[in-house]
Amino acid sequence: MEGTKPMTDTREQVHGAMRQIQDDIIAAFEAVEREGAEASGLPPRSFVASSWQRPGGGGGTARVLTEGAVFERAGVNVSAVYGAEVPPSLWKERPGTRGHPYFATGVSMVLHSRNPYVPAFHANMRYFEAGDDWWFGGSLDMTPSYGFDEDIRHFHTALKGYCERHDLVVYRAAKEWCDRYFYLPHRKEMRGIGGIFFDNLHPEGADGYTRALAFVGELTAVIQAAYLPVVRRHMAEPYGDRERQWQLYRRGRYVEFNLIYDRGTIFGLQTDGNIEAILMSLPPLVRWEFQYAPEPGGPEDDLARFLIPQDWAG
Amino acid sequence: MEGTKPMTDTREQVHGAMRQIQDDIIAAFEAVEREGAEASGLPPRSFVASSWQRPGGGGGTARVLTEGAVFERAGVNVSAVYGAEVPPSLWKERPGTRGHPYFATGVSMVLHSRNPYVPAFHANMRYFEAGDDWWFGGSLDMTPSYGFDEDIRHFHTALKGYCERHDLVVYRAAKEWCDRYFYLPHRKEMRGIGGIFFDNLHPEGADGYTRALAFVGELTAVIQAAYLPVVRRHMAEPYGDRERQWQLYRRGRYVEFNLIYDRGTIFGLQTDGNIEAILMSLPPLVRWEFQYAPEPGGPEDDLARFLIPQDWAG
Repeated sequence: MEGTKPMTDTREQVHGAMRQIQDDIIAAFEAVEREGAEASGLPPRSFVASSWQRPGGGGGTARVLTEGAVFERAGVNVSAVYGAEVPPSLWKERPGTRGHPYFATGVSMVLHSRNPYVPAFHANMRYFEAGDDWWFGGSLDMTPSYGFDEDIRHFHTALKGYCERHDLVVYRAAKEWCDRYFYLPHRKEMRGIGGIFFDNLHPEGADGYTRALAFVGELTAVIQAAYLPVVRRHMAEPYGDRERQWQLYRRGRYVEFNLIYDRGTIFGLQTDGNIEAILMSLPPLVRWEFQYAPEPGGPEDDLARFLIPQDWAG
Repeated sequence: MEGTKPMTDTREQVHGAMRQIQDDIIAAFEAVEREGAEASGLPPRSFVASSWQRPGGGGGTARVLTEGAVFERAGVNVSAVYGAEVPPSLWKERPGTRGHPYFATGVSMVLHSRNPYVPAFHANMRYFEAGDDWWFGGSLDMTPSYGFDEDIRHFHTALKGYCERHDLVVYRAAKEWCDRYFYLPHRKEMRGIGGIFFDNLHPEGADGYTRALAFVGELTAVIQAAYLPVVRRHMAEPYGDRERQWQLYRRGRYVEFNLIYDRGTIFGLQTDGNIEAILMSLPPLVRWEFQYAPEPGGPEDDLARFLIPQDWAG
């Protein structure tokens, strides 16, 4: 359905915050990419922008870095879309919004590292308006091929601190939601080591919207505190074909999750979203193997113990 | 649900026919693999069997060839499963079967070639029983990375002859069903160049079952006539990194189709099927690229004209 309503100040403000996150986080990723390139002698790569229009209303800009020294692929997408009627996937989760016009804006990013010791990373912040209702949602999660206790403790402790500073999202609840969401039933394992996932964030009170926007708007700082130290710790670690092959094999799980279960991917595919921006999340190179099992007791086999929900920020 | 009914003679007979197809087609694939290995100096690979039990009732045997000279991965799976109550995915297509116990047996295979000029191939034959009802179904389709008119004409002409010899499945209808089934709406293109797809095959008359079984039982001969000549034509063709990269990229579409749309894959994932046997269909190595478009007018770009339904056996 065509949407005709122009952007209000609030919409502009949130959309602006999402674009700010895109600018800032890309600057941060490019700084890491330059460091890695310098250390390895490879040429550093930059993000390239590509804008798209949505036929039904709205559009977005995907910015993608390809074949980098640190990031084999990194994509950061910002979109703002609207329509005359809330789609089923939204009103089914929030029945009161049914039949209303809607507006949605968000930033989402996926990073696939080159070094198998550097985890893949995903984050997303989103804002919805439907009728008089509005709410924020978001998630951050990390997907290592090799597990290191200190990385995962660091990541979760940073996310816990972030939640506690703002007192809007309860870390434990958001962490458990993330564990449930990024789960592959057919593999009976989590996609990675989790993180946080929240939705329906609409704080009460006159400053509710402002506080929620401040929380969401801190995404760049959170990624710099939670994920980038893990990248820097491992990006120069030597590895061989064995580690590379394991990384490619583990990426198969990422593809399985995104194509079979991910709400955002399925929603995008079914609603004429920009296909390249949606599937930007898929890894550049992936391997599947029949009945593969890592060598018992080896570092690959050890990953399994990290893919079970547990208290990492205790 | 637990199924308790032992196999009847009919079930044994159809299951036996499926296992015979598995034996015969594997012998045929191994012969091609040996030819290719001899020509290229690589060691020929054989199929390795792996049996599995289904917790709810039944089981199967997957036989897989890995890293061959001709077939980078080939898998042929036979299964026979049963249960006390027809699952929704079945009775929704055949409402009269609801609430009855069921039995299903079938053979399915997927081949991913090493040489980018050799198309990937898929075939499946299946038999269902529910209450007093029974029916056969099946499909064969080919997925090239590079299109050659003569290959596709040859493939479709062979399938047309097969259908016409038996006069049970109308080639044109089965061809159109295949075009509709192996389609990626989000890419607005077919998975490959089609083939045939039929279902609900339950011919009338005293010899209906026998005729249907004879039709399905001819699968090995059909593959030898329709697909293997295409393999032999291209398996020694020289290629470089450009062709290999294009093949890996095109395999991404195969993964997208199987994980997002394929009925059998989704049914298997949702019903505790053997995960390795189900995902055996995925290619060994796959590549995704952001906003990739082949060089206009080149042989990669030319593939698009083959991915549109058209009359190949006219």
